[in-house]
Amino acid sequence: MELSVAQTVIARCRKLAEYSEEPGFTTRTFLSQPMHAVHGCLRNWMEAAGMTVTVDHVGNLRGHYPAARPQARRLLIGSHLDTVPHAGAFDGILGVVLGVALVELLAGRRMSFAIEVVGFSEEEGVRFGIPFIGSRALVGDVDDELLARGVGDAIATFGLDPGRIKEAEVGPDALGYIEFHIEQGPVLDRLNLPLGVVETIVGQTRGTMVFEGSANHAGTTPMNLRHDALAGASEWICAVECDACATPGLVATVGRLSVSPGADNVIAGSAQASLDVRHADDAVRRSAVNRLVDCAGQIAARRGLTIRWEPRIDQAAVAMDRDLMNLFQPAHRMPSGAGHDAMIMARRMPAAMLFLRSPGGTSHHPDETVLVEDVTAALEFGMVFLERLDARHG
Amino acid sequence: MELSVAQTVIARCRKLAEYSEEPGFTTRTFLSQPMHAVHGCLRNWMEAAGMTVTVDHVGNLRGHYPAARPQARRLLIGSHLDTVPHAGAFDGILGVVLGVALVELLAGRRMSFAIEVVGFSEEEGVRFGIPFIGSRALVGDVDDELLARGVGDAIATFGLDPGRIKEAEVGPDALGYIEFHIEQGPVLDRLNLPLGVVETIVGQTRGTMVFEGSANHAGTTPMNLRHDALAGASEWICAVECDACATPGLVATVGRLSVSPGADNVIAGSAQASLDVRHADDAVRRSAVNRLVDCAGQIAARRGLTIRWEPRIDQAAVAMDRDLMNLFQPAHRMPSGAGHDAMIMARRMPAAMLFLRSPGGTSHHPDETVLVEDVTAALEFGMVFLERLDARHG
Repeated sequence: MELSVAQTVIARCRKLAEYSEEPGFTTRTFLSQPMHAVHGCLRNWMEAAGMTVTVDHVGNLRGHYPAARPQARRLLIGSHLDTVPHAGAFDGILGVVLGVALVELLAGRRMSFAIEVVGFSEEEGVRFGIPFIGSRALVGDVDDELLARGVGDAIATFGLDPGRIKEAEVGPDALGYIEFHIEQGPVLDRLNLPLGVVETIVGQTRGTMVFEGSANHAGTTPMNLRHDALAGASEWICAVECDACATPGLVATVGRLSVSPGADNVIAGSAQASLDVRHADDAVRRSAVNRLVDCAGQIAARRGLTIRWEPRIDQAAVAMDRDLMNLFQPAHRMPSGAGHDAMIMARRMPAAMLFLRSPGGTSHHPDETVLVEDVTAALEFGMVFLERLDARHG
Repeated sequence: MELSVAQTVIARCRKLAEYSEEPGFTTRTFLSQPMHAVHGCLRNWMEAAGMTVTVDHVGNLRGHYPAARPQARRLLIGSHLDTVPHAGAFDGILGVVLGVALVELLAGRRMSFAIEVVGFSEEEGVRFGIPFIGSRALVGDVDDELLARGVGDAIATFGLDPGRIKEAEVGPDALGYIEFHIEQGPVLDRLNLPLGVVETIVGQTRGTMVFEGSANHAGTTPMNLRHDALAGASEWICAVECDACATPGLVATVGRLSVSPGADNVIAGSAQASLDVRHADDAVRRSAVNRLVDCAGQIAARRGLTIRWEPRIDQAAVAMDRDLMNLFQPAHRMPSGAGHDAMIMARRMPAAMLFLRSPGGTSHHPDETVLVEDVTAALEFGMVFLERLDARHG
């Protein structure tokens, strides 16, 4: 029985998932040893499809499929090749394998634009705590300070030249960037839809809210004489959830909470809660953060606690390009709640993203999967996109 | 200028606080090296007051002051000599030093009962995680299993004989036990009262409430599709506080909360909250615990979480002896929210406790203190107690 193209795409992703730093799991960080094998496989498939393959000096794998005419502009199709620890088989790599499959489906036919399929070396930020190193190199945003933080050494160890990293930058011939990616959330699955077109990558606020009270004996301190930092933090966590539920499109999360001294029989003297707030509209997000900080202040005042808000990240939302979006067939439009390489690439060129349903919303987990019919749909969307873009540039 | 007796008591406590395992702090665990020096000082004061001093084989220091007649019964006055790490100068030791001072105030006068001042070797449970080892030996509750857990070796290293620990047990000649102790809570301070007579040592429930939900991406999971274990735990912590505030005399505390996976950008998949519930009436306490467990179940059901209640301690309240209490002058009557040696001694004989105000409620901290006028009041209460007991037995 011959495999469908979609089945082949899935089989290739599962094959590449075997190249790991850790037996029994898929863990493949930036420029780790198994990345060589992933490059080898992809290079073979790319070359068989008529592409010229290079690895740039930040470790991005780049397959070039020429246009009908020289001097034509270039469409980039990409995603990332690195993974989180104990990852699934599709986050990132699916977008690269789909890009190769689209070129294969062209079967040697030349378009009015060249196609470059890019497998970014780094997106997850696992190895150095710095995400998007691969796509940042393409938009010229890798500086000496970044190289000095160990990235330069990793590049050299992989056999590349950190002094030539600037050569990775794309020129003005790039006409746009598209990225296929699993949703990594439950929205399409709940809507029973195979695909979604991303309109915006949400903006994000992160910080820590510290509640300070008085540590005291849990047996000898009556309820009315307590200044319980954990009780205050708990009241606030409920308020954070309530506010987000009442604000369409807002997500707000306290995922980390540390309590001091943290003993069963001691009233908490302090509690530190993380806050992660995201929305496609920066004004909505910032006003939500202001409300939540005010709310913490009110809770603290009523309870005889003090608070300290320590903001860490305030990252603006990034709109995808409306023209490129419209080259896809009509589909559910949605925000992306997570960051992606498309967010970085959008600084330099029009960018668009297509999400594939994540069954159960599962991602960053070995159970992560995609449905073969959704991959088929994504391939169809991709081919229509290429045809329409060809017509426009032809 | 001559020091008052109360000033001397305070000066002695501060002097003994210098004998520590840790320079700059008062840390003196069960049978640690500095305990020898504490025994030495107390032995000198006791002998000067006409007492015969021994150390029993669990390391309790015992000073015997004879009665007017041989064969008379014996009143025990005691508290503990060990401390928590970085302790104050009064928790425990004040009760022993006050006992010695009361005998000094008798100035050689014989009562109708003998007096034994006991400095218990262990109450805090710091060294072996087992509290009340000293008083347990007096009521015959030290078994081979306890000795095997390192306690036997510690006794031998201190120069005592673990094989003779049974000799520490008190006989039927003991007519009662009284203990002077700082309150370690803010109640007397808030009421502006120097002393309180303890009616009951509260019963205690301890356990862990585990909430299990689904760990998910904080950016890609909409609010209505979450099963956030920390949000559930927070709602419950607020409910615990509310219930305790609405139930007179109840204290309920969540002092420890651990969240998994505990990352800023991941919705909590599980949250483990400690629960500590105390009340002087066991029925009130147990029904509160039942309500709180039910409440967690309701919160979990509404949120699509599961809970697991893991009880660890269910310790009944211990009533102090009404007859002994009435030998004190009238004073504020109150429960003790913490456990004390009197709780153990009450298993074998009538027991009573007198609390001295803790300014600011501060205890288990270098700032722990007592007021000289409160110590004076405690000495007066003690002398009246001895006179009344003498009259009863005379």
